[in-house]
Amino acid sequence: MAYSNAYAPSAPELPESFVEQQLDGENRYHYAYQYQPTQQFSSSSVMFPPETHPDIVKSFESADRDRSGFLDESELRQALSFSGYEGISDRTIRFLMFIYKNPGDSLRLGPKEYVELWNCLAQWRSIFDRYDRDRSGKMNSTALRDAFFHLDYMLPTSVLQLMISQFDDGTGKNVELCFDSFLECGMIVKGLTEKFKEKDPGYTSYATLSYDVFMSMIIPFIVSYD
Amino acid sequence: MAYSNAYAPSAPELPESFVEQQLDGENRYHYAYQYQPTQQFSSSSVMFPPETHPDIVKSFESADRDRSGFLDESELRQALSFSGYEGISDRTIRFLMFIYKNPGDSLRLGPKEYVELWNCLAQWRSIFDRYDRDRSGKMNSTALRDAFFHLDYMLPTSVLQLMISQFDDGTGKNVELCFDSFLECGMIVKGLTEKFKEKDPGYTSYATLSYDVFMSMIIPFIVSYD
Repeated sequence: MAYSNAYAPSAPELPESFVEQQLDGENRYHYAYQYQPTQQFSSSSVMFPPETHPDIVKSFESADRDRSGFLDESELRQALSFSGYEGISDRTIRFLMFIYKNPGDSLRLGPKEYVELWNCLAQWRSIFDRYDRDRSGKMNSTALRDAFFHLDYMLPTSVLQLMISQFDDGTGKNVELCFDSFLECGMIVKGLTEKFKEKDPGYTSYATLSYDVFMSMIIPFIVSYD
Repeated sequence: MAYSNAYAPSAPELPESFVEQQLDGENRYHYAYQYQPTQQFSSSSVMFPPETHPDIVKSFESADRDRSGFLDESELRQALSFSGYEGISDRTIRFLMFIYKNPGDSLRLGPKEYVELWNCLAQWRSIFDRYDRDRSGKMNSTALRDAFFHLDYMLPTSVLQLMISQFDDGTGKNVELCFDSFLECGMIVKGLTEKFKEKDPGYTSYATLSYDVFMSMIIPFIVSYD
């Protein structure tokens, strides 16, 4: 079995909207976004889901300088920096924005999407810290394999090597991942595996895909940053 | 038929080494690299394939400042700039480097790889110019569809929209691709389609993939730039 069929908690969830978004190769930009907040934490007009931690609200509001009720990319970087996530690359910021934004919206996050992203980051951070055993802030390929194994992703060595080589600094030796790269790796593996599983409901490790579906599954993970 | 089964000339070829590299999810880093030059154009120790245009040799040698016989990323940018390809983004430079480098080598290009890349760029440039009908240096989604159609890629509208949305500036309207983005789009579509075709030799538009193969097919297209 190449990936888990366990129903136990696994990798942090991608937003439901993202999983829904590309199903069957169709554009679901008409996806009904039914956010109905039942509680308001903020004094501004921005509404957060109930039980949102006040620090999350604070980081959002501090970064939302134009009081638009949304974070654009630079505001998101600022908000994450307030939350202790410094040094997140432009690439990862864009990737997070793309995955967590409301599918019908432009590249910006409202309170609900920000909370989802924040919770996901906290989970990946916790996994990273568990496997960064020497507290170097870096994770080598063995630790990465162990972390994925823990998440029930039994990645074959060839795939793991390919993944690691994408973060190669040119020497090809002793590649280590910082949290930023780990986060990206994790979300890619998680996201692609989820897409594959949708087409392999019997957990056979094989899926039959049409060309259209194949292309539609992949392209969202190939993000441009220009 | 979602993609062409024609044997007529189609999109510019990816290097054989790249197509070979990830077959069946195996790491083929032992791929036998049998470059045997039969003619030497340069006065330096760098050897080019026979009949290489002197301008290509010149751009390589001018950029290879340390006379290593190889181009690293910044030297490649310089070499392409000498050849009239200015403003190629860091992302695309890295992508080209990754696809065209000798699979057993680090991120650098020798003369043979550089010539392959150069020829490929010239072909994509020619396609771009043909479909940039108003000579604006930009290509809209209709022109992109026509260009892919011309290349025998009958991309479904949903895939085309997804692809275009990756280059969205945030407004989601009137997205236009510069040559740099077109080149990236083209190489991604070409590369992914080639991978799919390998698993669909009967041109049925359907392929059955194992999880390992699926992951190995895709990850090379998700390149990191940090």
